[in-house]
Amino acid sequence: MADETRPGDGFLSRDDTGDERLARGKAQLARITGRSGEEVMAALADVAPDFARYIFEFGYGDIYSRPGLDLRTRLLATVAGLVCLGHAQRELEVHIGSALNCGASRQEVIETIMQMALYAGFPAALDALFVARKVFAAREEAGTPPAQG
Amino acid sequence: MADETRPGDGFLSRDDTGDERLARGKAQLARITGRSGEEVMAALADVAPDFARYIFEFGYGDIYSRPGLDLRTRLLATVAGLVCLGHAQRELEVHIGSALNCGASRQEVIETIMQMALYAGFPAALDALFVARKVFAAREEAGTPPAQG
Amino acid sequence: MADETRPGDGFLSRDDTGDERLARGKAQLARITGRSGEEVMAALADVAPDFARYIFEFGYGDIYSRPGLDLRTRLLATVAGLVCLGHAQRELEVHIGSALNCGASRQEVIETIMQMALYAGFPAALDALFVARKVFAAREEAGTPPAQG
Amino acid sequence: MADETRPGDGFLSRDDTGDERLARGKAQLARITGRSGEEVMAALADVAPDFARYIFEFGYGDIYSRPGLDLRTRLLATVAGLVCLGHAQRELEVHIGSALNCGASRQEVIETIMQMALYAGFPAALDALFVARKVFAAREEAGTPPAQG
Amino acid sequence: MADETRPGDGFLSRDDTGDERLARGKAQLARITGRSGEEVMAALADVAPDFARYIFEFGYGDIYSRPGLDLRTRLLATVAGLVCLGHAQRELEVHIGSALNCGASRQEVIETIMQMALYAGFPAALDALFVARKVFAAREEAGTPPAQG
Amino acid sequence: MADETRPGDGFLSRDDTGDERLARGKAQLARITGRSGEEVMAALADVAPDFARYIFEFGYGDIYSRPGLDLRTRLLATVAGLVCLGHAQRELEVHIGSALNCGASRQEVIETIMQMALYAGFPAALDALFVARKVFAAREEAGTPPAQG
Repeated sequence: MADETRPGDGFLSRDDTGDERLARGKAQLARITGRSGEEVMAALADVAPDFARYIFEFGYGDIYSRPGLDLRTRLLATVAGLVCLGHAQRELEVHIGSALNCGASRQEVIETIMQMALYAGFPAALDALFVARKVFAAREEAGTPPAQG
Repeated sequence: MADETRPGDGFLSRDDTGDERLARGKAQLARITGRSGEEVMAALADVAPDFARYIFEFGYGDIYSRPGLDLRTRLLATVAGLVCLGHAQRELEVHIGSALNCGASRQEVIETIMQMALYAGFPAALDALFVARKVFAAREEAGTPPAQG
Repeated sequence: MADETRPGDGFLSRDDTGDERLARGKAQLARITGRSGEEVMAALADVAPDFARYIFEFGYGDIYSRPGLDLRTRLLATVAGLVCLGHAQRELEVHIGSALNCGASRQEVIETIMQMALYAGFPAALDALFVARKVFAAREEAGTPPAQG
Repeated sequence: MADETRPGDGFLSRDDTGDERLARGKAQLARITGRSGEEVMAALADVAPDFARYIFEFGYGDIYSRPGLDLRTRLLATVAGLVCLGHAQRELEVHIGSALNCGASRQEVIETIMQMALYAGFPAALDALFVARKVFAAREEAGTPPAQG
Repeated sequence: MADETRPGDGFLSRDDTGDERLARGKAQLARITGRSGEEVMAALADVAPDFARYIFEFGYGDIYSRPGLDLRTRLLATVAGLVCLGHAQRELEVHIGSALNCGASRQEVIETIMQMALYAGFPAALDALFVARKVFAAREEAGTPPAQG
Repeated sequence: MADETRPGDGFLSRDDTGDERLARGKAQLARITGRSGEEVMAALADVAPDFARYIFEFGYGDIYSRPGLDLRTRLLATVAGLVCLGHAQRELEVHIGSALNCGASRQEVIETIMQMALYAGFPAALDALFVARKVFAAREEAGTPPAQG
């Protein structure tokens, strides 16, 4: 299930330089989100270029590159977490797409969101279902086949 | 992976009476949490007995009995969601145990929590790691073998 | 005050089937919101039809059909809760309308929101006041008389 | 219902000095909470005496002294709001007591909390029910009769 | 550093009438936000004129007029707090402008926001960086020189 | 004011290896919190040793080592943010101490917390004031002189 886990002690190499983490993070972000991340870099270039680096290096180069949990589950966990935050609509849109990219079915995304009604309440779940509908519709339009469901 | 999914249209039978939902919910709660739920019923008996029923009927009889997503992923999603809520320490303790009961490894629980640092911040994730440590230690003491990890 | 309370032990009949809960919930939703709920069902039809059922069955058929608290107070409590969540603008718009439908005056809605500044801060309350203004204006335009105030 | 409303334009007198607001707030706090507020003043005396004044002046002298909504509803709205905040257990304990003091029945408090499960999720509501049970038990012990229920 | 602190015991004069607090608050709001506050008064005039008064009197006349902390730090603290609330985009826009008005540099605003990624997560910080970019761009367009950076 | 800023382009060296970031982070954590961080490492050693590394490397080695904002302001911003999160009592305790270590006076800490009542509500601010009182008392007992106030 966790096919991207790696043997070892659970630590990534600590000899990585920042540029190595950056490269790894960019590759992982592209794999997960299906985007290059250029638009985030461009959007932050004027005000906070380092923040884009942290997203790549720490978010994708460190955390999302860790062994020990498969990416499909990681992304469904992220969807669940974002529903519970309540305010992260744009991130939710990105990561619902990422969950599909990583092998989750549309139904699995929907089930994850619906379940969060128990923990975050119905309004947060309902808002997230509407975001999912938007993501699914955009994929239909773009001709992206639903991963499994 | 989703061995508990059922064929059909995604709808549970709508002919269920409340008592049938209650029975299904109690069985599912026991399967997931490893507890009978009697302690919740007892705790709520004086003030809100119906609320215990809703937890069984809606929470476990409806939502957690749905096909379409395997229980291991459902519980890791719940752990992720509870970390992001920030205030649900007791629920987190229960559901970290439930995740282990449903086939998640300790490492998978830890990875799920650590990843939420990206979305809910480090303090929420750190608090949750301490809850996980407590759950793991209680299981060591009780002689419960770690599921997989 | 609690004219919709019913004699009995505080439990709704447990012999209700899902379809009976659904019917009761649809009727109660219509009474409270002044809408049929068809637009929610239509919006969720593609992605999560069961979620619409849960809103009817559990939300309105179970919770909002309970005895023990009058609807006017129930809806003002909901308005208060939604202000404190902070992120539920669309729900707030619906339920400010519902509060008016259930006998709360405009002034009572405003007082409820203002009071939440103490608990959720000024920005959440201010946002909610602007939502209330929008709801009141839409009713003026539609010729709906203010309930009491 | 709103027996404490006052005729007029909805404005409290603007000629109040701080000391007048303080006196009004102290009286209103005592009426609502059944406490003198001395313990809050004492607790804050070393670090933030002005904050105690703001609680009296603004919280109780301004907001909770406003006409336009009866105190029973005000307090049930506060209970609802505090459940949705999720983190305010101590305040919830105080204000569940205040709701009872202001004419809400125990059942009304319980209904208000249970309803918030729809908006803030089950864990927040469950935590609040346990706080309510604690408040009710303390009153039993102290021989305080339940207001109405 | 705290040039606006005042000698004394940390208490504002308690002889202030509401109108004096209102006048002080309006002046302080204008100093901090660079606006008159008329637009808030106008927006609330129909539904909650008192709430505009509370913003002036309590928010700016009491809190933001206190000695003991310089305004630049006060506003950066507010920016940090609003990032962590997650839902307060409009307030964030106003107060990023206020921080610049009170002597914070653009870089200081950005650093404050970025740091909050540790506590509130990356999505909240990223959203806030985009708000900051918008505020900076509007100032460029209006020809407002960056305070220091 | 920003005496720890460094000349340059706002970027830390990207040639840092993980171990260099770790060392820088440990030193900065010690400087800020007055603790070695060993207790965090020990607490996480069994369950999530990497998470301790991320706190050092990313939290203190990257973010808190950045130029562009003085540490006193950084820590007061953190206190403000933690008050608004609402659930982070233990972190708040640590960082109120850190704020004092970095040159903030007790009064400045108190002012920062009180101001957050405007944004996060009174209960969150009141809880935080009690945490501050506890931190101040522990310092009195330990004989730590108040930084400035």
